[in-house]
Amino acid sequence: MHFTAVDVIRAKRDGAALTDAQIDWVVDAYTHGRVAEEQMAALAMAILLRGMERREIARWTAAMIDSGEQMDLSAVPRPTVDKHSTGGVGDKITLPLAPLVAACGAAVPQLSGRGLGHTGGTLDKLESIPGWRARLSTAEYLAQLESVGAVVCAANDTLAPADRKLYALRDVTGTVESIPLIASSIMSKKLAEGASALVLDVKVGTGAFMKTEAQARELAETMVAIGTDRGVKTVALLTAMNTPLGYAVGHAVEVEESVAVLAGGGPADVIELTIALAREMVAAAGLDVDPAEVLASGKAMDVWRAMISAQGGDPSAPLPTAPVTEVVRAEQAGVVTRLDAFAVGVAAWRLGAGRARKEDAVSASAGILLHRREGDTVAAGDPILELRTEDADRIPAALDALSGGLVVGPAGTAVQTGPLVLGRIGG
Amino acid sequence: MHFTAVDVIRAKRDGAALTDAQIDWVVDAYTHGRVAEEQMAALAMAILLRGMERREIARWTAAMIDSGEQMDLSAVPRPTVDKHSTGGVGDKITLPLAPLVAACGAAVPQLSGRGLGHTGGTLDKLESIPGWRARLSTAEYLAQLESVGAVVCAANDTLAPADRKLYALRDVTGTVESIPLIASSIMSKKLAEGASALVLDVKVGTGAFMKTEAQARELAETMVAIGTDRGVKTVALLTAMNTPLGYAVGHAVEVEESVAVLAGGGPADVIELTIALAREMVAAAGLDVDPAEVLASGKAMDVWRAMISAQGGDPSAPLPTAPVTEVVRAEQAGVVTRLDAFAVGVAAWRLGAGRARKEDAVSASAGILLHRREGDTVAAGDPILELRTEDADRIPAALDALSGGLVVGPAGTAVQTGPLVLGRIGG
Repeated sequence: MHFTAVDVIRAKRDGAALTDAQIDWVVDAYTHGRVAEEQMAALAMAILLRGMERREIARWTAAMIDSGEQMDLSAVPRPTVDKHSTGGVGDKITLPLAPLVAACGAAVPQLSGRGLGHTGGTLDKLESIPGWRARLSTAEYLAQLESVGAVVCAANDTLAPADRKLYALRDVTGTVESIPLIASSIMSKKLAEGASALVLDVKVGTGAFMKTEAQARELAETMVAIGTDRGVKTVALLTAMNTPLGYAVGHAVEVEESVAVLAGGGPADVIELTIALAREMVAAAGLDVDPAEVLASGKAMDVWRAMISAQGGDPSAPLPTAPVTEVVRAEQAGVVTRLDAFAVGVAAWRLGAGRARKEDAVSASAGILLHRREGDTVAAGDPILELRTEDADRIPAALDALSGGLVVGPAGTAVQTGPLVLGRIGG
Repeated sequence: MHFTAVDVIRAKRDGAALTDAQIDWVVDAYTHGRVAEEQMAALAMAILLRGMERREIARWTAAMIDSGEQMDLSAVPRPTVDKHSTGGVGDKITLPLAPLVAACGAAVPQLSGRGLGHTGGTLDKLESIPGWRARLSTAEYLAQLESVGAVVCAANDTLAPADRKLYALRDVTGTVESIPLIASSIMSKKLAEGASALVLDVKVGTGAFMKTEAQARELAETMVAIGTDRGVKTVALLTAMNTPLGYAVGHAVEVEESVAVLAGGGPADVIELTIALAREMVAAAGLDVDPAEVLASGKAMDVWRAMISAQGGDPSAPLPTAPVTEVVRAEQAGVVTRLDAFAVGVAAWRLGAGRARKEDAVSASAGILLHRREGDTVAAGDPILELRTEDADRIPAALDALSGGLVVGPAGTAVQTGPLVLGRIGG
């Protein structure tokens, strides 16, 4: 079949559904440079404004998967199940979750990414552990999956190269905010990993990419449809992201909080979400185990230590601490009526936890500890936030980011806090 | 004011009107390579799908004019008036029109283009005259405008360079068919020429870029608004382009037909449109002269000869003739019910009159002569079309293009032929 880029662009521009053959051709030709960046930019904008049908999105995703290699996990003796979060502030859930689900009897193969913008990346958090390395060979990856049951490592460049190229293009052409393109981007990477089941944590709120529940639901439904159409058991939870998860935002501080959860302590919301996602993953893997019991048993902590050690990390080593701290205190007594996820995320980013460009390094010790959370009462002078950084010059910009995001209201003000899990799609 | 390309793209994508400052910035930054091709492609698609307001279109046009030089015609002692046609099949009108309007007392400064696709370019037609050259220096151009009163020559690269760059981009990104972008492209080049008045011939029909009268009217209204807002008296005629203008389609053959009109003969439709456009141009130039009388006087022919000579051409030299001819005859007696402009245009193009890429050369002698036109009766075996080419191998593809475009119906069939001038906008 012979196509031209202009024909495909015009079809979508004029509101047509692209044929399977058109999608296969344009994704392959773009990957190999026969469709130019400016042509794909015009097509991406047409897709953003015209939309894609379920069949088109599934095919687009398949074409991006087919642009590279797919992992073959058929030799792994346990049921495989992966998890993806659309990203939030204080979202360290993968850290306790992966070892917990492995301790329940599944294998968790997670190829993960680094953070960009105000949400942290799982690899960045784990790299705060001395010696831990994100990059594994395929052989190491498969061996660890079999011996430990959980791997969190960097995706190599052979998975969905079309998506990598398109993602970079969308970033500079104002074509990020398209549900079909977001869903196919996420799912092409996840499905290329080869797990038999997938659980998605779709965040909704100020600190999430999706600001409204309707948007988040549409994204979740789109991703669940893609996975289901490809024969992968896929479930999504919609979860709240208006205020940070847990009491720690950063890298080393989030690892510490995760270890606390694995040790049987930790913040209630982090425990709740970890268990909720673990239940979905365990069920999707076809196992009949209660993750709450497994967490209480300490087996998940054993897997965590094995998982960190297998990737060169020392699970007992002290984590880096920041030399500079700044405490934000309550100016008067009252109630914390607002502690906004986006404001805290940007502040942590400015303290050194985040990167502006992919090439930037992050500070392992930078971040924010929450001494109080939304709904908590404070006396005048009580510490609310503790900012940590390697560079005191970063403090003013971080405080600036928090302006308006931290509000203390009069004592007795009722603070509405909704449920953490807002909905469930799929299964 | 500081902008980023992504901010401007997102604004238009989300349906906002771009501010003057955003338009000025993005056109300038694109011209100088600070906004990348893929970013402008995404913006062009957003403009195509979201539209632009009258103010935005005027500003976009102004920004494209400001990307280059503007001709200063203030030293020309006569009133200046230019003409632009959106392009049709057999559209040689500029050839008799420019000398006619000059003979009426105006100065006609026309920077023209070459053909691409199925419609021929005025420069290509004139280049069939031995010795004639399209490229003049600015000094030569101004001198000829003063001495002869009419110049048709190639635009130099300093006029609206933003438009040249954007036009090439739109061509490969499926973003040609946007009325704001088409109108601003045409008008930026025409307004940069510096004439005080402008008459537009907006074609509508199968052989035109605009297939429906509604589209053509919208384009015409948009262009008239741009010119008017800039203080240039601008008028547009909507004219029919379902069947070729005149009896000749090609280069040398159209020059011959134009000379016939200047000599007092020629096809009725070519005369009608030449006079109609000349009346508009003369009126827009503020002159009180009847072009029909001037044409009959032979003065327009004198200007034609001077105009061709001034650019190195020999107005008396024989024009190139094609070595190969193929006559298409009526298979049975009847009436020519359809002689489609697009089919004839494509056939002439395939005979060598057109180019597929800007760099291609055209054949001066290739083309098609019409022995019959729509509504004419034919006996079996009568010649209807005469194909001319330098290369006999091109005949089959040309005949193929005519398939369905030439229909002979039963004798007595009534053939509807509408008016040539369908409407008038502006003034």
